[in-house]
Amino acid sequence: MVVKSELKLIRSLQQKKKRAEYGRFVAEGVKMVRELLDSSLVADKVYATEPEILDGWEGPVIPVSEGELRKMSNLKTPNKVLAVFHIPDPVEIDETEWVLALDGVKDPGNLGTIIRLCDWFGIPQLLCTEDTVDCYNPKVLQATMGSIARVNIVYASLGQFLEQTKLPAFGAFMEGSPVQRVEFPEAGILVMGNEAHGVSSEISKMLTGRVSIPSYLTSGAESLNVATATAILLHEIRR
Amino acid sequence: MVVKSELKLIRSLQQKKKRAEYGRFVAEGVKMVRELLDSSLVADKVYATEPEILDGWEGPVIPVSEGELRKMSNLKTPNKVLAVFHIPDPVEIDETEWVLALDGVKDPGNLGTIIRLCDWFGIPQLLCTEDTVDCYNPKVLQATMGSIARVNIVYASLGQFLEQTKLPAFGAFMEGSPVQRVEFPEAGILVMGNEAHGVSSEISKMLTGRVSIPSYLTSGAESLNVATATAILLHEIRR
Repeated sequence: MVVKSELKLIRSLQQKKKRAEYGRFVAEGVKMVRELLDSSLVADKVYATEPEILDGWEGPVIPVSEGELRKMSNLKTPNKVLAVFHIPDPVEIDETEWVLALDGVKDPGNLGTIIRLCDWFGIPQLLCTEDTVDCYNPKVLQATMGSIARVNIVYASLGQFLEQTKLPAFGAFMEGSPVQRVEFPEAGILVMGNEAHGVSSEISKMLTGRVSIPSYLTSGAESLNVATATAILLHEIRR
Repeated sequence: MVVKSELKLIRSLQQKKKRAEYGRFVAEGVKMVRELLDSSLVADKVYATEPEILDGWEGPVIPVSEGELRKMSNLKTPNKVLAVFHIPDPVEIDETEWVLALDGVKDPGNLGTIIRLCDWFGIPQLLCTEDTVDCYNPKVLQATMGSIARVNIVYASLGQFLEQTKLPAFGAFMEGSPVQRVEFPEAGILVMGNEAHGVSSEISKMLTGRVSIPSYLTSGAESLNVATATAILLHEIRR
């Protein structure tokens, strides 16, 4: 039995403001929760309609009815398990490693895919401008497929970071050096811009290099999606 | 004024079965319709709340009220223009060019992104198995950003195609030759599999090569999204 105030608190975590206020976020579904429980993230509360479904997890599980789960859930078809996790404290950026920076990426699916790409390509740190979509947004989480626990994500001023860093800073642009001709260093920062407007003019001025992904001769496409462009650029950095 | 039967027909085109029956599909929004009107696609009917918004288009425009547009539309917020287009007849696959083949891709956003990638990388032909999501699905169209008019998309048996083709056939797998070491020919076929199960076993047996995208040493990610993997492989083919 879950009290009303608790249901209300969990539902409120669907809002970014409330997540920031309580320092907590919600993950749903057996596979996702399982993966986050096995990660460095710290669970606050775990709810399940069939507690034995989290076999191997030794922490407490609060049994809930299907009806209660439905009231907590953000999904059309709630999937047996819901857990509240603590948002980890941001770790300082390590300047001996690559950093991916996002300058105003708005689409939750794009951010989720990009976090999964960072994990795949061993890019340990993601710096997001404050106007980038929140990484604990339920749609972002769903698209990360659990990679969120393995990437250090920091929301901060990209301008201030670029001002003080010694790392070479590359940005993705429609016009720039073709990526296959760029010699990437051991560590650096790669900036990807907003879906519609690209990298902001403030940030553009602070970069040391502009890279682009050449389209094919006959191409009629105007641009690549930011997540697919990130895939190609991270592949080139690790190539 | 649009009669009831017409509204009903347009709404019915949200279903794949009806699109096949009538040989027509619906596109919405000023930018999308504008782009498709300027393409090789043939419009059947064009509806607009402000006909002057399609400035430069010389064909007939049927004026509709906001209410009528709402009744036709598949969007939460209808965007001034809706058009019905003829589904083009499939063109035979040209075996002097690259072919991308999809073996059971289910997610509309993934298919839309992949069509946009074909356009960007000048891959003129996309062969989809019958169990791949329909490319005239409204969510696919939205994700293509108009590229749908510039790629020849054929739904057919991939097994039959592979049986008779002389093209070398590559498939994307978790285990395979690292893509950067593969020498791609001038023309060939690249097969991408289903989001959860990859390339089917029937098709796997018919391939001449298996390629993979190496993850980084420390990666914890299980796989890449099919659209981001396609981005990297097409970039390598054109590199």
